[in-house]
Amino acid sequence: MSDLEIRPAAVGDLPAVVAMLADDPLGAERESPDDLTPYTAAFERLAEDPNQHLVVAVREERVVGTLQLTIVPGLSRKGATRAIIEGVRVHADERGSGLGTRFIEWAVDEARRQDCQMVQLTSDNTRTDAHRFYERLGFTASHVGFKLSL
Amino acid sequence: MSDLEIRPAAVGDLPAVVAMLADDPLGAERESPDDLTPYTAAFERLAEDPNQHLVVAVREERVVGTLQLTIVPGLSRKGATRAIIEGVRVHADERGSGLGTRFIEWAVDEARRQDCQMVQLTSDNTRTDAHRFYERLGFTASHVGFKLSL
Repeated sequence: MSDLEIRPAAVGDLPAVVAMLADDPLGAERESPDDLTPYTAAFERLAEDPNQHLVVAVREERVVGTLQLTIVPGLSRKGATRAIIEGVRVHADERGSGLGTRFIEWAVDEARRQDCQMVQLTSDNTRTDAHRFYERLGFTASHVGFKLSL
Repeated sequence: MSDLEIRPAAVGDLPAVVAMLADDPLGAERESPDDLTPYTAAFERLAEDPNQHLVVAVREERVVGTLQLTIVPGLSRKGATRAIIEGVRVHADERGSGLGTRFIEWAVDEARRQDCQMVQLTSDNTRTDAHRFYERLGFTASHVGFKLSL
């Protein structure tokens, strides 16, 4: 396969990014790819925050993946800084290509560059393939993830 | 019991806060309450970040609880902003006093004030009492929490 570039997302990437968020068993019910207004507002907020890294993977000028890395300083674990991965999506055409692995490895490397001591993420209980994927990459399923919708 | 105040943590609260982080089955092995240097550096980083809310609960001028609320904008779920709760500790003397409930309710209310659409947290698999506590407060154990130490 041709070269893959991982770079900060630009506002022009939003249609492709939102389409990937929606092309997902859980995302299909939660996203509104026909109305980018709320995504554009959120993008601007992310772009202003130096602790937010919204990135895309691009192959042959086509956006084929997205993830969000958030740098979170904190007191616990001797003042450890964490990196939180959210919103990982890989285009359907790229599944099985190794892009997911390269993408998460990129996020882990970026977390190291930002002096984080830990990388963490949560994955819906139903995404059992994703759980195996993260365990293969060295993550430990040590926690229960709780959510409360407001 | 006398009135409880929940307020932003000040640098002078650090000894009490770090003592609570360390007075915990998991924290005992991870914290260094005799050397506040790394905590002071982390505190300064938190204080500079408008998306970070490190708070303490104070009763009779004594720090009896701490938690960290992080506001995380994002694209998924129609550009939803999340609030992440980390580092929740209640002083041993206050357990069973209802402080934990009031503290999490405060965090949920603060998340609403900050226009978050979701509150989330992870809890170590071994903290089964905490899991019941969060479920009683309306949280759903819908996710697996993965961690990777760097």
